Amino acid sequence: MPFFSQTVQHIRSSEIRDLMKLATRPDIISFAGGMPNNDLFPVAEVDDIILNMNPDIKKMAFQYGPTSGYPPLLETLKKYLKSKGLPVDTHRLMITTGSLQAINILGMEFIDPGDLVLTENPSFIGGIAVFKAFQANIKGVPLQHDGIDTEALEQILETEQPKLLYVIPNFHNPAGIIYSMEKRKKLLELLKDKDILLLEDDAYNELYFSEKARQLSKPLMAMNHDGVTMVYTGSFSKILGPGFRLGWMLAPPDIYEKAQIIKQGIDACSPNFTQVIANEFMKKGYLEQYLNKIRKEYAGRKQLMQKSLKKYMPEEVTWTEPEGGFYFWLKLPQHMNATEILKESVEKGAVFVTGKTFDPEAKRNNYIRLAFSNMNKNDIDKGIQIISNAIKKNILVHS
Amino acid sequence: MPFFSQTVQHIRSSEIRDLMKLATRPDIISFAGGMPNNDLFPVAEVDDIILNMNPDIKKMAFQYGPTSGYPPLLETLKKYLKSKGLPVDTHRLMITTGSLQAINILGMEFIDPGDLVLTENPSFIGGIAVFKAFQANIKGVPLQHDGIDTEALEQILETEQPKLLYVIPNFHNPAGIIYSMEKRKKLLELLKDKDILLLEDDAYNELYFSEKARQLSKPLMAMNHDGVTMVYTGSFSKILGPGFRLGWMLAPPDIYEKAQIIKQGIDACSPNFTQVIANEFMKKGYLEQYLNKIRKEYAGRKQLMQKSLKKYMPEEVTWTEPEGGFYFWLKLPQHMNATEILKESVEKGAVFVTGKTFDPEAKRNNYIRLAFSNMNKNDIDKGIQIISNAIKKNILVHS
Repeated sequence: MPFFSQTVQHIRSSEIRDLMKLATRPDIISFAGGMPNNDLFPVAEVDDIILNMNPDIKKMAFQYGPTSGYPPLLETLKKYLKSKGLPVDTHRLMITTGSLQAINILGMEFIDPGDLVLTENPSFIGGIAVFKAFQANIKGVPLQHDGIDTEALEQILETEQPKLLYVIPNFHNPAGIIYSMEKRKKLLELLKDKDILLLEDDAYNELYFSEKARQLSKPLMAMNHDGVTMVYTGSFSKILGPGFRLGWMLAPPDIYEKAQIIKQGIDACSPNFTQVIANEFMKKGYLEQYLNKIRKEYAGRKQLMQKSLKKYMPEEVTWTEPEGGFYFWLKLPQHMNATEILKESVEKGAVFVTGKTFDPEAKRNNYIRLAFSNMNKNDIDKGIQIISNAIKKNILVHS
Repeated sequence: MPFFSQTVQHIRSSEIRDLMKLATRPDIISFAGGMPNNDLFPVAEVDDIILNMNPDIKKMAFQYGPTSGYPPLLETLKKYLKSKGLPVDTHRLMITTGSLQAINILGMEFIDPGDLVLTENPSFIGGIAVFKAFQANIKGVPLQHDGIDTEALEQILETEQPKLLYVIPNFHNPAGIIYSMEKRKKLLELLKDKDILLLEDDAYNELYFSEKARQLSKPLMAMNHDGVTMVYTGSFSKILGPGFRLGWMLAPPDIYEKAQIIKQGIDACSPNFTQVIANEFMKKGYLEQYLNKIRKEYAGRKQLMQKSLKKYMPEEVTWTEPEGGFYFWLKLPQHMNATEILKESVEKGAVFVTGKTFDPEAKRNNYIRLAFSNMNKNDIDKGIQIISNAIKKNILVHS
């Protein structure tokens, strides 16, 4: 049971499951869950879509669909991706059951046991879990305030031959950063004519807080990437709702062909019911309207959190102010153990996720991830105060 | 790329993909697709559910849910499964993204490359594809008119140690048969105290055409199966709609625990949006009402097809009249090649799936599967006449 044992080891070692339980305690302030805000979902718009749907399309929503996706949604999504500069004419688009499934399919397609896979450190826990499940040898490349450490990457590439590099250039989960233009160019340059698949996960692309961030958030795949084999993944989870379980993958034709055959054996097709709704949601112009609303809300929450962090955190704690997305990523002093801080915070009424969870080697633990997306806004200040106090207490003990 | 290469080989060798293309030609009569009828879906009931849904539940439908499933649906489904005699108190229930995902998860949990996996011959193509993807050594055990050939199975078990046996006891896809009580008992007896997982796929359970068939369709897992480790899978695809992508798995606690961790890394959770609707569909009593309607419709279609088959088929062609489900499984004379018959039929305007597709070793090809679920009812007679003529022509050539 090779798959299983490694996956278990990884997920068990993370504290996510226990945290999720804590996070549902009614009195606790949770910065843990990386999910959209419950009160923002476009419920009325989706009601309207369902009520006014053509009866034949409605029937189709109940039926199996093509493995690659509901054709009208593929067309609508292509137009949208084209507007972002993505190469939808030379590449092929596939709807997946969440973008996590896209990563899974690529794992199945590319990774043999023992293959070297590079991720950023820290990285998205779901991606790490997939690569572990396929028994990859995972190496983390340090992430800096402006993107992946290209010098460290260059050094690795001098002596090793990774199969795949997995990156999240925009509004990173968990690190909250966005890649600079310089880092983007340097990364593509480093990978040019090397036989390494570059997997770009862009789940947070639309959640920018400023025009500057919007301009910078252009996908890597929309840049000139001659000589670099790339797959781009995106998701409806942040722009409509995770409950739809819809993501997508834009890939070169040969990778797409194999991916489609693999998906056929995994779940035959993604839910037609939610694909039909997602298509109408985009076609009716609800998406842009909804995005304007949520960008404003999340930017406001980020401001509140930034203010509270500045007010309460000791100077030993540092972070990069996010320009989009859901997360603050706090660096604690080297000696500190985030798990200790978590225990103290939970006791006082606030939870978050410890840094170790996002370290592909599950070692480094002097970081914490704070999501500002889905708690009661009025609790942000109190929650940050609790966590700050836990950190200060720990500093005192060690000084 | 071990997974990939074997999957491709399997799926490419089947003709399903080409057939699906043919089946969409407007003038062709298709007995190919194993899908529910488009015009029967409970569209009005689902509209009613969405319109009258509690706003808080509606919001939740957009959000991530627990990996094991939307808790109210798990409760509702447990009551339903309990009414079928299934051991929901000693076993654990998990919602999956279609029941195909359940088979995938078990493949991941149990199968190492080279492991022996037994299936019926013929068997469900999706199941075969999963076992091939995990590089199992698949052996088909012949299926008879009343269930698996227990003598052949006994013989295999004398010398070999399979990891898993996959069966579809009720309204088999593709064979259309139901296991006799004798075969059910004998099967459980043979597996007693052997270290073999018995995987029971019961996707068609509700689609019986008579009271006798209803009584016989009691799940194997609802019988005394002391000493046999079992997992039971079911699906909303045939009782609500495949577009919902919802199935389930009932498993012993230790298998469930591992399955949950694996599912977390595959797609985090199944679509909450469709789970919320499925729960209301059952709770409001729409399910039983819908089942009564579709059982009657499919039974009527079966009658029509049986009549036409008797009218047109040469005596060399034999079949077991189905007591439920979607399929007739026709045995042609030994020397005949179903692919030749298919070519001739397509030319004259009717498609079906050749037997080889459902043979785990992709050899035997003197069978054809005819689905009566989703074509225009008035075309059944004409379509069967076309296929019968193709067979008769082939008999003449060979005599």
